[in-house]
Amino acid sequence: MSSPSSTSDVVTAAMLAIGDELLSGRTKDKNIGHLADLLTLSGIDLKEVRIVSDEEDDIVEALNALRAKYTYVFTSGGIGPTHDDITADAVSKAFGVPCIHEPEAMRLLAEMYKRREMEFTEARQRMARMPEGAAHIPNPVSTAPGFIIGNVYVMAGVPQVFQAMVDNVLPTLKSGAKVLSRAIACPYGEGDIGTALGAVQKAHPETSIGSYPKYDGARFHTELVVRARDAAKLEAAAEAVTAMIAEIAQSKIATNPTADA
Amino acid sequence: MSSPSSTSDVVTAAMLAIGDELLSGRTKDKNIGHLADLLTLSGIDLKEVRIVSDEEDDIVEALNALRAKYTYVFTSGGIGPTHDDITADAVSKAFGVPCIHEPEAMRLLAEMYKRREMEFTEARQRMARMPEGAAHIPNPVSTAPGFIIGNVYVMAGVPQVFQAMVDNVLPTLKSGAKVLSRAIACPYGEGDIGTALGAVQKAHPETSIGSYPKYDGARFHTELVVRARDAAKLEAAAEAVTAMIAEIAQSKIATNPTADA
Repeated sequence: MSSPSSTSDVVTAAMLAIGDELLSGRTKDKNIGHLADLLTLSGIDLKEVRIVSDEEDDIVEALNALRAKYTYVFTSGGIGPTHDDITADAVSKAFGVPCIHEPEAMRLLAEMYKRREMEFTEARQRMARMPEGAAHIPNPVSTAPGFIIGNVYVMAGVPQVFQAMVDNVLPTLKSGAKVLSRAIACPYGEGDIGTALGAVQKAHPETSIGSYPKYDGARFHTELVVRARDAAKLEAAAEAVTAMIAEIAQSKIATNPTADA
Repeated sequence: MSSPSSTSDVVTAAMLAIGDELLSGRTKDKNIGHLADLLTLSGIDLKEVRIVSDEEDDIVEALNALRAKYTYVFTSGGIGPTHDDITADAVSKAFGVPCIHEPEAMRLLAEMYKRREMEFTEARQRMARMPEGAAHIPNPVSTAPGFIIGNVYVMAGVPQVFQAMVDNVLPTLKSGAKVLSRAIACPYGEGDIGTALGAVQKAHPETSIGSYPKYDGARFHTELVVRARDAAKLEAAAEAVTAMIAEIAQSKIATNPTADA
């Protein structure tokens, strides 16, 4: 049942989703289901989820309850540049340590904004704040890192960033079985592949197939990531995804034979 | 902040979603966002959501924490006919009252199964169980009622049933402002109207437009429900929905002029 996992090899987890917008209905959460899928594949038992508002006391209370009870706690949301992004402060308070502008995060962000010829404003510098002593979770999408303190993993709320951070965190967790993954580049946008991809996922229930839209400035393409604990099931699903892409390519050529192949 | 609302006119709420399938990722919750939308329109402040597994102790603990803290608690899930549907037992335990086969619920279910010429099995009789003294929440979709005890509203997990129960509950709650609603029959299925309806919702952000698929045994149609606190905004959105349906009808006639109009 809900006993702490330290006494057995059951690895447990909780998720804490943070944000007024989730409770007002303005934003519909997409991270809970994604994390649930991947933890299940990893053999980690997601036991509880809470959604709380952007209020420091609420975040601290929920975080302290969850981190005492489960092996891991994963949070989403509240680490952006605006005044209501208070997750770093709340997590610092929960652990009783100062919340600092972490030097390496400042360096990464300063560099990125310089490259993009944008000002590294005070608001943007907020994204470098984390509890003193925390470790980074790399953010390949938008640079500003998440962070790890104790058994708590603090990640972004934007689904693409959350998912990228989860991908970086999963291999570091103790778990029942390792998750294998295979990334497949797909030259089409999600609108073109959504229905077919849904059918592939349905035909391969013991895998998790993620779709990550990319925009190169001119058109959308996607990176498809197949995950499974079983190598043969991974292969079968990856082959089905590859076949699906080939079929879509054929149908596009048939529809528009003069286009560049 | 999170103080109980009894000292002011702020009406607060929490939601408790119950079910292993939500935590394993097998089912992606659709009820939290729906309830959040409607409570916001009703002027009720959704402060916290928790998702817990089908384990009695976990449900009791979460329910007792939430019902002490907020004006209302809404639960979803765990009131079906199978062995892992234990919400009625857990809620009874939280309130310290017996869990009984409630006579009026037994009568409603017996009648329905008789009408459908199906056996009213022991498993199906489980759906009549609720804490002694609880009041019904009518279920126009599949008969088995939800129930109300104290400030706790216990509803089904299946989104269509959950939504129908919420519709029956909302007018009975104390709230900041009454939600107006308008139902519009639409002869097309969700696949035909989804994109256009999304655009209408986006253009009318202070309304909530719900889509309820119906199947008459031969084809899908939908009931569209527009909700808003402001009568003028309700009218504007309802007109846009009506115009959308007319446009789809026109395009269908253009595509297939020989079909029955």
